[in-house]
Amino acid sequence: MVGQLPKYLTGDPAAINEFIDQFDIFLFDCDGVLWSGDHLFPGTVETLELLRSRGKKIVFVTNNSTKSRADYQKKLTSLGIPSTVDEIFASAYSSAIYISRILRLPAPKNKVFVLGENGIETELKSEGIEFIGGTDPAYRRDITPEDYKGLADGSLLDENIGVVLAGLDFHINYLKYSHAYQYLARGAKFLATNIDSTLPSNHTFFPGAGSISIPLIHMTKQQPIALGKPSQAMMDAIEGKFQFDRKKACMVGDRLDTDIRFGIEGKLGGTLAVLTGVSRKEDWEAEGASVRPAYYVEKLSDLKG
Amino acid sequence: MVGQLPKYLTGDPAAINEFIDQFDIFLFDCDGVLWSGDHLFPGTVETLELLRSRGKKIVFVTNNSTKSRADYQKKLTSLGIPSTVDEIFASAYSSAIYISRILRLPAPKNKVFVLGENGIETELKSEGIEFIGGTDPAYRRDITPEDYKGLADGSLLDENIGVVLAGLDFHINYLKYSHAYQYLARGAKFLATNIDSTLPSNHTFFPGAGSISIPLIHMTKQQPIALGKPSQAMMDAIEGKFQFDRKKACMVGDRLDTDIRFGIEGKLGGTLAVLTGVSRKEDWEAEGASVRPAYYVEKLSDLKG
Repeated sequence: MVGQLPKYLTGDPAAINEFIDQFDIFLFDCDGVLWSGDHLFPGTVETLELLRSRGKKIVFVTNNSTKSRADYQKKLTSLGIPSTVDEIFASAYSSAIYISRILRLPAPKNKVFVLGENGIETELKSEGIEFIGGTDPAYRRDITPEDYKGLADGSLLDENIGVVLAGLDFHINYLKYSHAYQYLARGAKFLATNIDSTLPSNHTFFPGAGSISIPLIHMTKQQPIALGKPSQAMMDAIEGKFQFDRKKACMVGDRLDTDIRFGIEGKLGGTLAVLTGVSRKEDWEAEGASVRPAYYVEKLSDLKG
Repeated sequence: MVGQLPKYLTGDPAAINEFIDQFDIFLFDCDGVLWSGDHLFPGTVETLELLRSRGKKIVFVTNNSTKSRADYQKKLTSLGIPSTVDEIFASAYSSAIYISRILRLPAPKNKVFVLGENGIETELKSEGIEFIGGTDPAYRRDITPEDYKGLADGSLLDENIGVVLAGLDFHINYLKYSHAYQYLARGAKFLATNIDSTLPSNHTFFPGAGSISIPLIHMTKQQPIALGKPSQAMMDAIEGKFQFDRKKACMVGDRLDTDIRFGIEGKLGGTLAVLTGVSRKEDWEAEGASVRPAYYVEKLSDLKG
């Protein structure tokens, strides 16, 4: 996976032109590339317009699992970025696609127990997938002695649960974990929208979706199939939807371990790192760096010269 | 750590007599040894009495972090087991002892942020340790936009927190994790009462204290100092309190990976496994078994012949 040092494009119009010409489609990570938190980076909109004007397809690829594609499009709009719902690929959607089109468990044992928020529910519904848990207030309470008994003897469990899907759940609690564990112990497939341990926000970190699933990994000794970057299950789902030549695709991101790895392992034609997010130049210049982008710029808007 | 196969004592009065004679003090794991769930094993009380009548010191050693020693003594009493509070050594108490007598952080930055229940609070109070979090209802709620802001800028944090102590918390939530993470990111010491991933109950498993701390391990890439079995911090605390010759001490337990390991790594004179709990004979007979007890019986009451 380790290649030569990346080509630096900032301030080199000929190289930028040649770089853009190679690709038909650009997959964009969002936070850290287009914006940070609620702050849109200057030149983001113009750069995307430049690419569109040169006939490039744009896809916004996000591990955010709390939002549906429609929710996410509203976020892009609120930041002033023109987009369509069809350009958005989020890990909740990726998970729903995976369950309905790839996993395809036979009915009736194909219901999903959800740890997560509304965005996951919306996308599961859009694929016609039955689920329980999620934002249901019945699970937002303390565990009781009756719960211990009913979970142990199975009387409180839905026997048609075939999948446990863990995303970022701001309402996680002991009761939900106890339910999820029982389903996994009884053979349900274990999926995670994504496994980022942290959620960057307000210039610090909060627990990410990976911190929701890890107690279940710890208890069951099972690893979930992760549907977000850098999981290739997400790349397969993107390719299935957009039908493109991987050699003519470029992944743009700020994180080596998710975005750039995602592009390299997906055998895309290119990867572009930006320095406006998490990873630093030193990360890939370090001896023994396990992931290196093919190109980098200081900031995305350097592409518009 | 791997020794020869253990000596089987059941039905061998001479060997049992010789075994008991070797030791002055017996450290007992409880659940799976003395009882299972709410079911006291027949002969438990008589076996303990036999040991006491032969002048042996008894210590009940438990990783249960939700109960104080006084709470735990009530549990023993309710099961019909005579005991004194001083015979009980639980991981909440072990944690309090470690903080007050070994860690000894200089005031004022020596307060503890607690993930856990009342038992931890009781033991911290008994050692005069200041704490926040725990069962405080102020932390039993959803996270708000003001929390994100106040946690990020530090205005909601107590600058005197020097320790994060994670035990089993039946009321764990996203807000508590967000607080705990901020304290750890700002340099607080990371302690865990114990790191058992599961809590056996009703013949199945529920999340254990180790499933409460693991999201923080995942987020911070730091390992906590664990104060429960098999951590030797707990053995040191027990020895500090009871002042005994380790060669004249025997650990009795049902789990190889916690109880028996605890005794072996503590260089006790002996370890005795019982087959009324988690581990099976096959576990230590397996080639490559990493932990083997020195002795075993089918059930504890086999010791009374």
